[in-house]
Amino acid sequence: MSSKFESFLQETKQLIDRELPEFINRLDAEHRLKEAMLYSLEAGGKRVRPVLLMAVLDAYGQPISDGLEVACALEMVHTYSLIHDDLPAMDDDDLRRGQPTNHKVFGEATAILAGDALLTHSFSMISNAPHLNDDVKVKLISIFSEAAGASGMVGGQLADMLGEGKQLDVDQLASIHHRKTGELLAFAVKAGALIAGATMTDAVKLSEYGKEVGLLFQIKDDILDLEGDAQLIGKPVGSDLSNNKSTYPGLLGMDGAKEMLATHHQKALDPLKEIGLAGTLLEDLANYIVQRNH
Amino acid sequence: MSSKFESFLQETKQLIDRELPEFINRLDAEHRLKEAMLYSLEAGGKRVRPVLLMAVLDAYGQPISDGLEVACALEMVHTYSLIHDDLPAMDDDDLRRGQPTNHKVFGEATAILAGDALLTHSFSMISNAPHLNDDVKVKLISIFSEAAGASGMVGGQLADMLGEGKQLDVDQLASIHHRKTGELLAFAVKAGALIAGATMTDAVKLSEYGKEVGLLFQIKDDILDLEGDAQLIGKPVGSDLSNNKSTYPGLLGMDGAKEMLATHHQKALDPLKEIGLAGTLLEDLANYIVQRNH
Repeated sequence: MSSKFESFLQETKQLIDRELPEFINRLDAEHRLKEAMLYSLEAGGKRVRPVLLMAVLDAYGQPISDGLEVACALEMVHTYSLIHDDLPAMDDDDLRRGQPTNHKVFGEATAILAGDALLTHSFSMISNAPHLNDDVKVKLISIFSEAAGASGMVGGQLADMLGEGKQLDVDQLASIHHRKTGELLAFAVKAGALIAGATMTDAVKLSEYGKEVGLLFQIKDDILDLEGDAQLIGKPVGSDLSNNKSTYPGLLGMDGAKEMLATHHQKALDPLKEIGLAGTLLEDLANYIVQRNH
Repeated sequence: MSSKFESFLQETKQLIDRELPEFINRLDAEHRLKEAMLYSLEAGGKRVRPVLLMAVLDAYGQPISDGLEVACALEMVHTYSLIHDDLPAMDDDDLRRGQPTNHKVFGEATAILAGDALLTHSFSMISNAPHLNDDVKVKLISIFSEAAGASGMVGGQLADMLGEGKQLDVDQLASIHHRKTGELLAFAVKAGALIAGATMTDAVKLSEYGKEVGLLFQIKDDILDLEGDAQLIGKPVGSDLSNNKSTYPGLLGMDGAKEMLATHHQKALDPLKEIGLAGTLLEDLANYIVQRNH
């Protein structure tokens, strides 16, 4: 990991960790609701989506603070999806990153409402971002709502539920993951391109990169579930297996999954080269996702 | 009810009933998810929010079709809030408008996701509305997300839950209702003013009207709960009482509640007079809300 990338990761995470709660604290709402929203926002996420967005801004020489509101909106939507996914009616998880899930602490009703409020507020964040023009905001909201909605993340979650216990092939698995998690990661990259005013050609190539990064992220998650350190990944090793979930190592064997990871690692880097963004933080970030240990 | 208003009500309801499902059918998503979204969207709502929005457009001589996407977005958010409110962890209702609630038909997980998808898609609807300028869209999304979010509807729902079983006074009750249902009704009026390009003075007066209409709506609902026809209101008479809910007749007596209704009826009509919109459909609409029997 280059030292520039290391300090960028740290700087971005600190910025988000510091600013994100402020946007919630400012809300004129019940203390209990804000507490529930903050609990999950502050539960120690890696802030991968903000990092992705801000790495694009950096690659175009734009201040990362220009993406602050959209990056926080992304964390809000990611967090709401975790709160709702953990509910008893959904995945029924008691722990997330080693801590009690939202509904275990605040009760189901408040957890549902905290998720709803985070999702709703994400659109307020974008529409009130001070450094963005109206046309950029409208485009961002259009592609954000698509990535997060029925044709993206929410639909992916339903497809994932419907696929449970069924034998999926690699393409089906990749398609579900792309919608469930990849679309939002890809949005982070597209949002960066829009805010930075990238050309259409660049935006298309960055979208390819974003899509590949989403896939890399999932393959690596599946590998870590089997080979990771339970302490670092925050859940028992092999929990996908015991939950009967389709995974890349399960379908391809561990060697096949690692081969797939290498192939798509290259496919993530290629579009960067084509638009002269090799060697930027975006390359470091793809490498980081592949090499991370949690 | 004037015959112009009667045909306007019918025309607006038909337009929404016809177009609303189309926006869902066009989504590239699981059949099951779209089915759950459509089930509640098509469960026979009165379309009060679209009617409000479009009555403002009509008062300014603007085609009501200019508000179609925002009106449908409003119905989506209203509908998602009903789906989530009916969940076992929330109000635990099996019936809504005489029909099984969403989670009774599709299961809790799908109901949660259908609500999430409707909320998310509402922002897609506004951002992609073909007849609106970007600055109008951004303002609409900003005030919409505020009306629907933690400081508005979602917070109101939590406040309502926290207030259950407690003795509230009239001001507390009005404040909770304003957030839980009034904010979205008031947004319908504000959205109409924004789309019609009303002056700031007009917009402020219309906001007052919108706030009063929200209150009228709730007082009348509480009165109907005790004096209405179970067949027409779609729930047993007196169900608020048996659910131990604070209501206006409960706090003020039936005569007091009717007096309050009359006072606020006048307060809804006054701002219309002040900006020369007396005698428009907006006046008819306030009268209709006060006189309706379901």
